[in-house]
Amino acid sequence: MHILIIGAAGMVGRKLTDRLVASGIGGKAVETLTLVDVVPPTAPAGFKGSAHTLTADLSQPGQSEKLVGARPDIIFHLAAIVSGEAEADFDKGYRINLDGTRFLFEAIRQEGLRSPYKPRLVFTSSIAVFGAPFADKIEDTFLSAPLTSYGTQKAIGELLLSDYSRKGFFDGIGIRLPTICIRPGKPNKAASGFFSNILREPLAGAEAVLPVDESVRHWHASPRAAVGFLLHAATLDLEKVGPRRNLSLPGLSATVGEQIEALRRVAGEKAVKLIRREPDAIIQKIVAGWPSDFNPARAVALGFRAESSFDDIIRVHIEDELGGKIG
Amino acid sequence: MHILIIGAAGMVGRKLTDRLVASGIGGKAVETLTLVDVVPPTAPAGFKGSAHTLTADLSQPGQSEKLVGARPDIIFHLAAIVSGEAEADFDKGYRINLDGTRFLFEAIRQEGLRSPYKPRLVFTSSIAVFGAPFADKIEDTFLSAPLTSYGTQKAIGELLLSDYSRKGFFDGIGIRLPTICIRPGKPNKAASGFFSNILREPLAGAEAVLPVDESVRHWHASPRAAVGFLLHAATLDLEKVGPRRNLSLPGLSATVGEQIEALRRVAGEKAVKLIRREPDAIIQKIVAGWPSDFNPARAVALGFRAESSFDDIIRVHIEDELGGKIG
Repeated sequence: MHILIIGAAGMVGRKLTDRLVASGIGGKAVETLTLVDVVPPTAPAGFKGSAHTLTADLSQPGQSEKLVGARPDIIFHLAAIVSGEAEADFDKGYRINLDGTRFLFEAIRQEGLRSPYKPRLVFTSSIAVFGAPFADKIEDTFLSAPLTSYGTQKAIGELLLSDYSRKGFFDGIGIRLPTICIRPGKPNKAASGFFSNILREPLAGAEAVLPVDESVRHWHASPRAAVGFLLHAATLDLEKVGPRRNLSLPGLSATVGEQIEALRRVAGEKAVKLIRREPDAIIQKIVAGWPSDFNPARAVALGFRAESSFDDIIRVHIEDELGGKIG
Repeated sequence: MHILIIGAAGMVGRKLTDRLVASGIGGKAVETLTLVDVVPPTAPAGFKGSAHTLTADLSQPGQSEKLVGARPDIIFHLAAIVSGEAEADFDKGYRINLDGTRFLFEAIRQEGLRSPYKPRLVFTSSIAVFGAPFADKIEDTFLSAPLTSYGTQKAIGELLLSDYSRKGFFDGIGIRLPTICIRPGKPNKAASGFFSNILREPLAGAEAVLPVDESVRHWHASPRAAVGFLLHAATLDLEKVGPRRNLSLPGLSATVGEQIEALRRVAGEKAVKLIRREPDAIIQKIVAGWPSDFNPARAVALGFRAESSFDDIIRVHIEDELGGKIG
């Protein structure tokens, strides 16, 4: 089995790599792992197969052709310019997120026209394909009406993926990841950063800033769940999915207040006291435009699973990032 | 007022041109009319302003820049490779319907970056952005999950139009036209052709073939209504539309049986006898995947209007195409 991960240097890409090295995929060993990103990906430690780490920018002509020419069995396309940057730099967002994705899809098609080739392609989409106003729960038949260029680019990637799959050029599946929580690493300035910061920092004994009301509701899944989604998408029988190849994935809908209650139960009052309230009207306004709850009936029926409580999301972080111990 | 029509040589483009010449737009006279298509458009008869007819293929680099450089106030983008051709020729469909549209949008943005320019852009989308399974009536919040490359390309055009409009690069509005009935001219081989053929041909004293059951339901509006939609979209206050710039338009949901009953009422049993039943399993199957009814609440609230009976649709054809007389 040859697996190509595009966007391998990111947080989810690194966790996916580790899991593939440790456990293979769908009961099979991974013989070849090609890791690609715009910054050099780290070679996987302890991997017994053949590993290739490459830097490449998919929006440059010819790059996708090279990657696809090696005929990987499964391609994970995780690479993207994030929401804030795509909004600030219109050209760059469209170049990387739209042209890069389309070049990849087209390179696969062209490779298959030379001699039969039909890899599995897993595309990480986003709940940013949805724009307010929403119903209380977003159903699987709700329209994609994004309110950001990033969401637009992901929605277009989804449409292309369905059409290329329908025409038989590859076996594509697009998965709309919930917001990943608890994101490991340093606090970042993304508008969504506080959802993780208010848990991760107190668990490590540090202060965190909460810029919104406790009533704010959002849609979450752990990094471990995200890797599980990717592996499930890569091995799922796509006959069962049918022509609508893009799925809103399961997650946990929780308010910030519920996040804090879970932190209290798992780590005590001492941790909760480290959350400092600093209301930020700009962040409040951005967050108000985001989806907060879904009814991801199709993905659930197809076997995708996320956490069912924030206590579990916190415990996953303690196990996977803190060696089982609270700081 | 300078108006640019891209796709001016098609049936709707020609009718739109005639109406603009006869009646102006939004109470204003048209001073300049630029008519563009891949085949030479006909110069408008009796037009007092300045008319330019050009052949151009928007998917060729530089073509859109030239058209947009003249800074038209209103741009009608009607040009497209039709559904059957886009399905048969994947590259051509994406080149014309996706790249051509994107080049146009981007040319407008670049023109505006040089010095402020923000035209009204009316984009004809299609009910082909929807793919089965449907609810009985397709609501305004129903997802775009096309089952053709043409529908995919139109859905992508819609997403780009909303994003470019949101960013303030132009004032865009996308309108999903119902199937146009009664289409004037010769019977054609499009799978949807029979909806018009079974009325137009008998009204002219000729035989027509009906390849599907009378129970088949579909979504219709007259060519006159289509021109009305375009003019309304070009002059509507877009503040009222908000960020979701693509609208399913009103139409008439009718079964083939109801079409035939209307023909009987308007033109008598003699006309109905000219319909020959020749069931065609392939056309039945294609048509079964098409939308048949909508609840276009937003477009109705915004003042778009279509016919409310098939008798009216037939009378429009008799008035506009047959000089008021049945052959």
